[in-house]
Amino acid sequence: MFWDRFPIIKEEIIEFEDYLQGSLVSRQPLIQEAISDLAKSGGKRLRPALLMITAKFGEYKKEEVWSLAAALEILHMATLIHDDIIDDADLRRGSKTAQSKYGKGVAVFAGDYLFTLTFDILAGKATTEQLKQVSKVIQQICEGEIQQHQDRYNISVSYKDYFKRIKRKTALLFEGSCALGAGSAGLSKSVVRNLSHYGRYIGMAFQLVDDLFDFSKKSSCIGKPEGNDFTQGIYTLPILYSLYEIDSANRLKKLLDNSVDNNQEIKEIITNNGSLDYTMGVATDYINKAKSKLKGLAGHSYQEILIDLADMVVDRDY
Amino acid sequence: MFWDRFPIIKEEIIEFEDYLQGSLVSRQPLIQEAISDLAKSGGKRLRPALLMITAKFGEYKKEEVWSLAAALEILHMATLIHDDIIDDADLRRGSKTAQSKYGKGVAVFAGDYLFTLTFDILAGKATTEQLKQVSKVIQQICEGEIQQHQDRYNISVSYKDYFKRIKRKTALLFEGSCALGAGSAGLSKSVVRNLSHYGRYIGMAFQLVDDLFDFSKKSSCIGKPEGNDFTQGIYTLPILYSLYEIDSANRLKKLLDNSVDNNQEIKEIITNNGSLDYTMGVATDYINKAKSKLKGLAGHSYQEILIDLADMVVDRDY
Repeated sequence: MFWDRFPIIKEEIIEFEDYLQGSLVSRQPLIQEAISDLAKSGGKRLRPALLMITAKFGEYKKEEVWSLAAALEILHMATLIHDDIIDDADLRRGSKTAQSKYGKGVAVFAGDYLFTLTFDILAGKATTEQLKQVSKVIQQICEGEIQQHQDRYNISVSYKDYFKRIKRKTALLFEGSCALGAGSAGLSKSVVRNLSHYGRYIGMAFQLVDDLFDFSKKSSCIGKPEGNDFTQGIYTLPILYSLYEIDSANRLKKLLDNSVDNNQEIKEIITNNGSLDYTMGVATDYINKAKSKLKGLAGHSYQEILIDLADMVVDRDY
Repeated sequence: MFWDRFPIIKEEIIEFEDYLQGSLVSRQPLIQEAISDLAKSGGKRLRPALLMITAKFGEYKKEEVWSLAAALEILHMATLIHDDIIDDADLRRGSKTAQSKYGKGVAVFAGDYLFTLTFDILAGKATTEQLKQVSKVIQQICEGEIQQHQDRYNISVSYKDYFKRIKRKTALLFEGSCALGAGSAGLSKSVVRNLSHYGRYIGMAFQLVDDLFDFSKKSSCIGKPEGNDFTQGIYTLPILYSLYEIDSANRLKKLLDNSVDNNQEIKEIITNNGSLDYTMGVATDYINKAKSKLKGLAGHSYQEILIDLADMVVDRDY
């Protein structure tokens, strides 16, 4: 298990799993099936864990923390279901996606149901400010998803566009998890801000590594076919770097015109021209920035966990 | 305009329109376009009007009422966008739907964006109880939509299933509008309950009449092709009544096996066998039940408006 290295977190995440499953309830059998499928297909529960760990730097209010953690994980699940619709994805974590199993129509409302569960949980437990925070994160996720969709097959997407996209798509929810966790624990504003930034930066690194998986054998481990992104016109940092910085850019542009057929050749170019190392370097820079935000928490036992966790984000095969 | 008969409401709805448009903002151009399209295509703003009118029975807090009204109308718009995805609908109110104009993927996240705007508005203005109320309504809408989708082409759907479906699909949001409006005005529990029931019953009638439009020339006025529902396997009360109560049921069952080709013949059967009168009778019963809930409010000027409005729900061609 991902959390084996941190027994204290592992134990709580295992216990939390039952709580999460207990929140995922619908009287409509098909919704129940779709959300149970997704819950059982696992996931590391990274966002709940970040919420818990950051909350442990202050006064740990378990009930509140678990509610918020369940709300954010359910929100994450909702975005996965809708993400698979826009990406037309058949597999996630090796299992059939809701959109391929039940059709896009059912998947839309199964995702909506989960969005609403998120707010239903938050309505009882979160402050107005927390609710607003979560709303803003979802708004940005939606904007990011549509921007990504609009930018498909556009070889002029800038680095800035790319970083903005992964911030919205992934990093803001990591940031939100830390902000809610730290915020619930009565920590000072500056500590909350530092932990929030830690979350944002590891979120950026997490997405960069995820995008690297598109070019590596490891992608089979996350249950999606290799080359999934660029064959669908979603150009991530390794592609953009190759287009902007490498001599073979013109060849690559031509190949991208028919990326499905040229899948293997594109991957060979990217794998051999230093783009992957560059991308990993950027991810590592984010991890270092994330760790630097923890300096003021030195000596705290959970500081070490967050440092190790940051390293695990770049050194992972899941 | 629908509200011509009620100048005092008409004036407020026109003023409210600007407020609503001002709430429908996204920095992502495609989302902005999609939600502006939908907003401009109009709609009667029935739910906001119900919220306003019911709030006028007590202390009218305009700012709160308008926020709640915008939130519910935006929620309604979100469900329309997602509804068109599950129904694969190309037209709504005579205009192209988001799913046909931008694709299902973009439509999913445009709808999600609106859902989140709803909660963003509510987060600042609604009580925990109101938030929970709205969450529950959305959950039931989602469950209803998926149930309807699952029941497609099922000629054994019971009346009970049908009424449960239209309650979830339409009536609960009408009820919610009245509940929030009346609730905001500091009215007694029993008045809030009566006004809520009024909303539910006119919502039931509204959907019944909407389902009748499927069989009448009037459907062109609401911008969707005639026979849209039953050719897609969605069997509404006129079809169910014909299947259960009329001698020609076996003939109808056979025709429904190929409802697209038999569209005209099915409509002729339904139009001539009394099913439409029966359905209109049920709608009228609901309108009478709705009006009966207003008895305790006799003498109040807005009581008359609600009574007239109830009549207009069954006597409409929009």
